[in-house]
Amino acid sequence: MSNSFGSRFRFTIFGQSHAPAIGVTIEGLPSGFAPDMEALGAFLARRAPGNGKYTTTRKEADVPEFIAGLADGHTCGATVTAVIRNTNARSGDYDELRRVPRPGHADYTAFVKYGPDRDVAGGGQFSGRLTAPLCVAGGLALQLLAREGVGIRARIVSIGGESEPAAIESLLAEVKAAGDSVGGVIECVCEGLPAGLGEPMFGGMENRIAQAVFAIPAVKGVEFGAGFQAGRMRGSENNDPFYFDETGPVRTRTNHHGGILGGITSGMPLVFRAAFKPTPSIGLEQDSVDLYSHENVKLTVKGRHDPCIVLRAVPCVEAAAAVAVYDALLESRC
Amino acid sequence: MSNSFGSRFRFTIFGQSHAPAIGVTIEGLPSGFAPDMEALGAFLARRAPGNGKYTTTRKEADVPEFIAGLADGHTCGATVTAVIRNTNARSGDYDELRRVPRPGHADYTAFVKYGPDRDVAGGGQFSGRLTAPLCVAGGLALQLLAREGVGIRARIVSIGGESEPAAIESLLAEVKAAGDSVGGVIECVCEGLPAGLGEPMFGGMENRIAQAVFAIPAVKGVEFGAGFQAGRMRGSENNDPFYFDETGPVRTRTNHHGGILGGITSGMPLVFRAAFKPTPSIGLEQDSVDLYSHENVKLTVKGRHDPCIVLRAVPCVEAAAAVAVYDALLESRC
Amino acid sequence: MSNSFGSRFRFTIFGQSHAPAIGVTIEGLPSGFAPDMEALGAFLARRAPGNGKYTTTRKEADVPEFIAGLADGHTCGATVTAVIRNTNARSGDYDELRRVPRPGHADYTAFVKYGPDRDVAGGGQFSGRLTAPLCVAGGLALQLLAREGVGIRARIVSIGGESEPAAIESLLAEVKAAGDSVGGVIECVCEGLPAGLGEPMFGGMENRIAQAVFAIPAVKGVEFGAGFQAGRMRGSENNDPFYFDETGPVRTRTNHHGGILGGITSGMPLVFRAAFKPTPSIGLEQDSVDLYSHENVKLTVKGRHDPCIVLRAVPCVEAAAAVAVYDALLESRC
Amino acid sequence: MSNSFGSRFRFTIFGQSHAPAIGVTIEGLPSGFAPDMEALGAFLARRAPGNGKYTTTRKEADVPEFIAGLADGHTCGATVTAVIRNTNARSGDYDELRRVPRPGHADYTAFVKYGPDRDVAGGGQFSGRLTAPLCVAGGLALQLLAREGVGIRARIVSIGGESEPAAIESLLAEVKAAGDSVGGVIECVCEGLPAGLGEPMFGGMENRIAQAVFAIPAVKGVEFGAGFQAGRMRGSENNDPFYFDETGPVRTRTNHHGGILGGITSGMPLVFRAAFKPTPSIGLEQDSVDLYSHENVKLTVKGRHDPCIVLRAVPCVEAAAAVAVYDALLESRC
Repeated sequence: MSNSFGSRFRFTIFGQSHAPAIGVTIEGLPSGFAPDMEALGAFLARRAPGNGKYTTTRKEADVPEFIAGLADGHTCGATVTAVIRNTNARSGDYDELRRVPRPGHADYTAFVKYGPDRDVAGGGQFSGRLTAPLCVAGGLALQLLAREGVGIRARIVSIGGESEPAAIESLLAEVKAAGDSVGGVIECVCEGLPAGLGEPMFGGMENRIAQAVFAIPAVKGVEFGAGFQAGRMRGSENNDPFYFDETGPVRTRTNHHGGILGGITSGMPLVFRAAFKPTPSIGLEQDSVDLYSHENVKLTVKGRHDPCIVLRAVPCVEAAAAVAVYDALLESRC
Repeated sequence: MSNSFGSRFRFTIFGQSHAPAIGVTIEGLPSGFAPDMEALGAFLARRAPGNGKYTTTRKEADVPEFIAGLADGHTCGATVTAVIRNTNARSGDYDELRRVPRPGHADYTAFVKYGPDRDVAGGGQFSGRLTAPLCVAGGLALQLLAREGVGIRARIVSIGGESEPAAIESLLAEVKAAGDSVGGVIECVCEGLPAGLGEPMFGGMENRIAQAVFAIPAVKGVEFGAGFQAGRMRGSENNDPFYFDETGPVRTRTNHHGGILGGITSGMPLVFRAAFKPTPSIGLEQDSVDLYSHENVKLTVKGRHDPCIVLRAVPCVEAAAAVAVYDALLESRC
Repeated sequence: MSNSFGSRFRFTIFGQSHAPAIGVTIEGLPSGFAPDMEALGAFLARRAPGNGKYTTTRKEADVPEFIAGLADGHTCGATVTAVIRNTNARSGDYDELRRVPRPGHADYTAFVKYGPDRDVAGGGQFSGRLTAPLCVAGGLALQLLAREGVGIRARIVSIGGESEPAAIESLLAEVKAAGDSVGGVIECVCEGLPAGLGEPMFGGMENRIAQAVFAIPAVKGVEFGAGFQAGRMRGSENNDPFYFDETGPVRTRTNHHGGILGGITSGMPLVFRAAFKPTPSIGLEQDSVDLYSHENVKLTVKGRHDPCIVLRAVPCVEAAAAVAVYDALLESRC
Repeated sequence: MSNSFGSRFRFTIFGQSHAPAIGVTIEGLPSGFAPDMEALGAFLARRAPGNGKYTTTRKEADVPEFIAGLADGHTCGATVTAVIRNTNARSGDYDELRRVPRPGHADYTAFVKYGPDRDVAGGGQFSGRLTAPLCVAGGLALQLLAREGVGIRARIVSIGGESEPAAIESLLAEVKAAGDSVGGVIECVCEGLPAGLGEPMFGGMENRIAQAVFAIPAVKGVEFGAGFQAGRMRGSENNDPFYFDETGPVRTRTNHHGGILGGITSGMPLVFRAAFKPTPSIGLEQDSVDLYSHENVKLTVKGRHDPCIVLRAVPCVEAAAAVAVYDALLESRC
């Protein structure tokens, strides 16, 4: 019931890891917009598997086909649907997964919620693969935002607590060799936003962006501006002094507020960070349960997996930010 | 446009600091529920001003009047509206506030969004006072959740980075004497939740709770379970092993997932933390701007204010958690 | 759960016939709008009881008090709440109503839906009195639409099948004397609407207006333009030929489409009609059931009632049209 | 923005007449439901073109492919997407349609709303072809409702004012020969509904069904129970007397209320009628305008078209009723 997001730019993500397809249905794209398909492909490629030595080797070219909503290559006011075919065949051999949930995964909660009929193949609808259609929606939003002078870029802040590239590289090698995984933190900056976006209380930019970013599997924390660090600060230190820039607009000398005051953009860069837990799929033996026999059992997850999902999650964070920001931008025009 | 929250338990908060009243309109309360008004009053009293030496001395008994939705003291299926009259008179002397926004407050962004007609008195609709109707909605949700065996309790984890009561007390005294303020962190635990609440992606429990908690002014970060710490951990450490409890249900030996996997409750305690920035209202001179003359000016905020809003925010965090959890509980029954 | 309407101009109606108050909570009013309270009062007076010889003698001055959302008499971007106090005291004597539902009323369905705890006094939340807050929301929307050159007026087309004023007068006298009631039809015309309002399929102007108009108790049918008559026509007759007006815009020579094509306004007057069933409260003995004893019983409804609700429903129809149209107008600007 | 409908059973329709595909994305289907694909195909065949001598000869087997949401033939809790490929190629020859809107069609309003970029081929998103995905969603809802003992059937009441089959046949032959078209009325009956579905005011069953039924192109009126006829009746005649059936439930001796009182189902059959205007596409010359040259011009619409859309609209009305009823049924369980 909640693969949907947004009010004016509203989309629903569909698909499972081993369904015929994954995709997204979008309402609210302006008429006359010709998506740059090459740029969209390049954006999707940044999250694609198989593009680095620390990512899974499952290899699929995630090329979206727009089956509805375009006419002569541009939007026409109709609902847009883009699909990405799943080329990896559904294998029948998921018996252990049906019985034994992987620690840290949604296997157990999906069983409780949907019963024995939930789709276990490849994680079903809880697969990280579902971030591909999020990146389709987000990639389109990024193109539309760019037209308005808004740029959104995310980057890895730390992996396993390390910030130095060399230290990260060494940590990843070690973790991969050990059959283990590691988490990290991604920071995202949105520049060029007009002041005045967002609504009070539940419609603030923090609320909207958090709602979007927590949709990315493995995100366990979101903070804006100084974030948790603000909990250690004094008002005299955290308050960002206002001043008039020579060029006109009001600015702040520091940006502890992360571009958001009272839920509404201030015109300063909107800055947030998302914490990712380590990929739950690891090669080591773990304790689990058999949901049918009600016994405690040992589980060793087989097959390919990313030792660090953070590497591929950077465009997903940009996409999540983009859909929230673009939706707020459209709303602000009513 | 977003003083509203929820889908099955849906409410809209209204009012401004110096309007005749603040309050809340709620749809979705079950018929035949007789709110415990005494318990609700006690809950509201926990966030009321004037109940401690480090809170503002503005003194108002926040007693909600239920003007609609009850018949003979119980709900009857009709929309419920509760109002709290504002007894502090609106003063005409807000000229400086109209011109000079307080750093760290929503004064500037409200001006950009609503223009010169925004309500500046006491912070208008951005006043922390609007958390009182949130506590009315949340207080009702807490009573309904208690009937289902769900308990929600928040507590202060740290203030200004200090966790020891004595250190906190000393820090508050120092900060108050200096005319400054300080931030902190609150942790909230929801116990007794059934497994299976929440929906995939944008409808996960993290998304919903974050959307509710960021409605509390001054919250700049939200994390679940291990949260940002998970970004430093390895999968073998962060993954919570499953086991069958003697009493039947599946449990996990640790709770780094904070009771949520794939957005859905696991049946383990749901745990989250919210970071609060320091109260932006401080007694010290600050840099700001005159929005009309376009000059940089000095501002000294007058009047009463809390040196640490965290002290009064504890029931607000419980209320935010309660409305999100109760809404998800109702949804799970469709 | 559905006392709410709209997406950009969104409101929730609350109250019961004998609750302390009825009212409405509105999000989405533009900032800086100073409602003309006198005009609003005059609009409400048109639906007020006691203003004619064929309307109930219950006499209440329905003067809304704006307890939130205004500052210095104008909107400020905050949620608006207006309340109308119920001055008629709740009487304890509703024992028969609790047991014996009135034919044609919601008494029975409210019992099924909300159980014995539903509010029976005066029809509870199903009372026609709840159209007063609809008229508050609609009255504000009408003022805002007038600024944009949009005018909405409804009128009685027929009562009991009669269209001539003298015939209607004579019918009403007869019906009143007989302790009976009679239905009718109201037509509403919206002029000055820009072309292009409304959305495809479920968001068309017919869908939106129908959703609003069916909220008025006793409405059992809604038709647009030629409506049911179109079911008897040929395409060559019903199709409205386009032409260019001297003044510029495209117009149609006839208006069988009622100003709506494909759900979207054409710029021609938007025309619809609503059919009202006769007031179910009549003075004659009727067959009903005792919900507790499960016996068939006779019921004679006591007390005041309107022999023809259509007389007072005219401003309600205008209000329903106004909220739907104004909401669509705001949406069209995103 | 409003190809979406529903709250618990929520779907979005996509596609245009000549896009690669049309289809529907659905959230809220229960897990473990195995759609009867044969029954769904038979249901879709009832609205398919080319199945009678008075329907267009465009021939397409509307077989939906479920690209997401099923696992091993049953739902699994994931979003469902079904697509129907359009096999008729997009022709480049729409120059006249781009310039000259067809009277009675959405051509002109689509131009105003979406500008020159709207999709004109085959009516674009306003094509009656978009009722096929409505029938997919409705067909699934019908199967789910049947499990609960709810049956929904529609039938033609009249065409061009004629009710007798022979008179209808003769009228259709005449109209077809003349290159003209004709409208009609369809009645729909929902049996087996539990009492208590629907919500007050804007969430009543009339509001919901009207919102769904007006999504079918050409519908210009909707009435429930006695409908417009109720406007001619007296209360003593229109009020349906309650009685206890031998089998237990409360029933009414007549059903002028059409199974709905106060917006809520009474347990009596839910009955409504929809008025269809004549198909606007006719073979006769009509007056229109050239949107670019701003001249009044003559238009003769070429190509296949139905002389009477009512013949194929029967399952569409059932589908619209089914999605509204099933959504209300799920809501009633919260």
